[in-house]
Amino acid sequence: MLRRLIIMSVLAALTAMAARAQQALGDRPQAVSPQTNADNSVTFRLLAPEARSVQVAGDFLLPSGAEPVADMTRGDGGVWEFTSAPLPPELYSYAFIVDGTRITDPSNVYQLRDIATLTNVFLIPGGQGDYYKVSNVPHGSVAKVWYDSPALSTSRRMTVYTPPGYERSDCRYPVLYLLHGMGGDENSWSELGRATQILDNMIACGEAEPMIVVMTNGNPAMQGAPGETPEGFIVPQFDLPKTMDGSFEEHFPDVVAFMDANYRTIPDKAHRAVAGLSMGGFHAHHISKQYPDMFDYVGLFSGAIIPREGVSSPVYEDSDAKLARQFAQAPALYWIGIGRDDFLYEANRDLRAYLDAHGYPYVYHESPDGHIWKNLRIYLTQFLPLLFK
Amino acid sequence: MLRRLIIMSVLAALTAMAARAQQALGDRPQAVSPQTNADNSVTFRLLAPEARSVQVAGDFLLPSGAEPVADMTRGDGGVWEFTSAPLPPELYSYAFIVDGTRITDPSNVYQLRDIATLTNVFLIPGGQGDYYKVSNVPHGSVAKVWYDSPALSTSRRMTVYTPPGYERSDCRYPVLYLLHGMGGDENSWSELGRATQILDNMIACGEAEPMIVVMTNGNPAMQGAPGETPEGFIVPQFDLPKTMDGSFEEHFPDVVAFMDANYRTIPDKAHRAVAGLSMGGFHAHHISKQYPDMFDYVGLFSGAIIPREGVSSPVYEDSDAKLARQFAQAPALYWIGIGRDDFLYEANRDLRAYLDAHGYPYVYHESPDGHIWKNLRIYLTQFLPLLFK
Repeated sequence: MLRRLIIMSVLAALTAMAARAQQALGDRPQAVSPQTNADNSVTFRLLAPEARSVQVAGDFLLPSGAEPVADMTRGDGGVWEFTSAPLPPELYSYAFIVDGTRITDPSNVYQLRDIATLTNVFLIPGGQGDYYKVSNVPHGSVAKVWYDSPALSTSRRMTVYTPPGYERSDCRYPVLYLLHGMGGDENSWSELGRATQILDNMIACGEAEPMIVVMTNGNPAMQGAPGETPEGFIVPQFDLPKTMDGSFEEHFPDVVAFMDANYRTIPDKAHRAVAGLSMGGFHAHHISKQYPDMFDYVGLFSGAIIPREGVSSPVYEDSDAKLARQFAQAPALYWIGIGRDDFLYEANRDLRAYLDAHGYPYVYHESPDGHIWKNLRIYLTQFLPLLFK
Repeated sequence: MLRRLIIMSVLAALTAMAARAQQALGDRPQAVSPQTNADNSVTFRLLAPEARSVQVAGDFLLPSGAEPVADMTRGDGGVWEFTSAPLPPELYSYAFIVDGTRITDPSNVYQLRDIATLTNVFLIPGGQGDYYKVSNVPHGSVAKVWYDSPALSTSRRMTVYTPPGYERSDCRYPVLYLLHGMGGDENSWSELGRATQILDNMIACGEAEPMIVVMTNGNPAMQGAPGETPEGFIVPQFDLPKTMDGSFEEHFPDVVAFMDANYRTIPDKAHRAVAGLSMGGFHAHHISKQYPDMFDYVGLFSGAIIPREGVSSPVYEDSDAKLARQFAQAPALYWIGIGRDDFLYEANRDLRAYLDAHGYPYVYHESPDGHIWKNLRIYLTQFLPLLFK
């Protein structure tokens, strides 16, 4: 009935609209990039006919031991190209440098933010990389949730993973509180950390118990990630007021109280874990000793241990007595993971020496490499199977 | 106790790590961009000392009536700069064109994807723009949730907004199903559409009832947005198999059944709305007449109306009889919004003529401009206050 009234094909019109929209914002990228080849080498391309030099920079170049920047070669039609060595499974980051200006790959819409820098990403699956893929398994829900913190006198944003079937079940679940590093926020673990995919995949295969995972924002001066608060589209900062000053640790019971009040948690020590990376490992260390009855599982992933110089907080006082109290009823698991090249290696070695000297039990995992996301993702996959058993 | 064992300040070390990480991926952007000035003009800057020409492209240039591309001027130290006219409140998109290659602004981490193109965004607040800001109001939760669809024999990803206080209350809520356009996905309304901020702000001020909002993926060939499915980091496509072939409409009761089974909905017609933009308006039109007892509120935002040529589906047959049945118990609201410059203007005019001829009641809003996100966001803010009254 209405069909006869239309003159122009709707599809043709919509397509034309899209083309115009693209045109309005410049030429559409025409190079295929990145392209994963059969041998897991990756070809990067950039159409830049007028450029005089184009490089690709990224962590995928590091295994060769060289500087993580490689020259690309200009080919026909002004497409610059570089092909990597075959790459082991991993989530990699890269960017281009065109005549000295750093840009992201306009052909690749997959980008992640690390502090104030966006980089493109790509994933080589297989082996460990399969934990980071979206697989054909049941998927948990990932929510951005605001909670009230009386201790910080504000509401704050966090990420909550609930396991597959949570909405449909009446079950209660254990909870892992998973904390980010300096410069990060409540999005870091679910984005750069691939925590959503890791949890879906490990729960599906029975490698991890179904659990709720709470990814907080560890910057007490912020309500949430940059762009997600009333401050608007600010430039992300690495170091913020109130960083590692004790106030995040002091407010932490507000998070646990919110979760126990609003989610079907199992609200006891035996069913709570706290773990974090770098500054988040610092937080996990100090939170778990500040509240010794709260967490039965503790994870320090490339963890900072030592308070900042000049910081004074009750949280960091009486550490010997607090650790003694915590280990009087020792956590079911106190897990420490660190890379041999990590600048925090010595701090973690000293912590282990202290724990050894006092007979406090812990599990230690030492890995290659340093303070990089690759290690942190691996530590999560090693920590999760040990929880809530 | 452990403090004395550390030599290097942890903060200094973490800062050094971050600096090295930045260095590894090229120089850090040094230009401040974009910068909103006191008169709501915006200054864009790009550090590109070796570039021969730099332009900025974006919808913010359109009010002047010119082409949406402007030349930037090279200043001291190789920083290119352009300052816009004072801009009305709005969420704007832009990109740079450097020696003919389109790039995003390396100083601005805020980017949104529209189909296969990333653009930077910035927001001029005030007036209508205040609906798009994150404000100091209670915030709903936004979850990425997977549901099973027996009709499509797969599980699928969607975005679910629950209003502030949902977790803590025992209340049941009405539900708006909010559908995207061609090339979009379950992320479109919460990202380009600013639906999360619009809902938070309108609910907080009593302009909209507290409600659940379900943002589905309207591409039956996909399980979810690009990058969020087992297909991996694919290049997003505009037109996909099964687009507007009836299968999305046929599967829609699976979505409603999932929501009614897993959320505290009010599971009746009087408390359900369906609305969509462009292809989503097409879906809302056809879903609401296919299931006349399901939705009491229908919204067509710049809606496509007419099925694609050559498509055969029971959904698109007997439209006269289906509309007669739907309007025999007329929806509480049938809302049509369209821009005067929209290429779908005639299709919507013809639909109105048809509704008029049959005495089917509807509410009509005609706006300036065409088939652009600006209009779609405005339509949402006009539609929400009319729901569930």
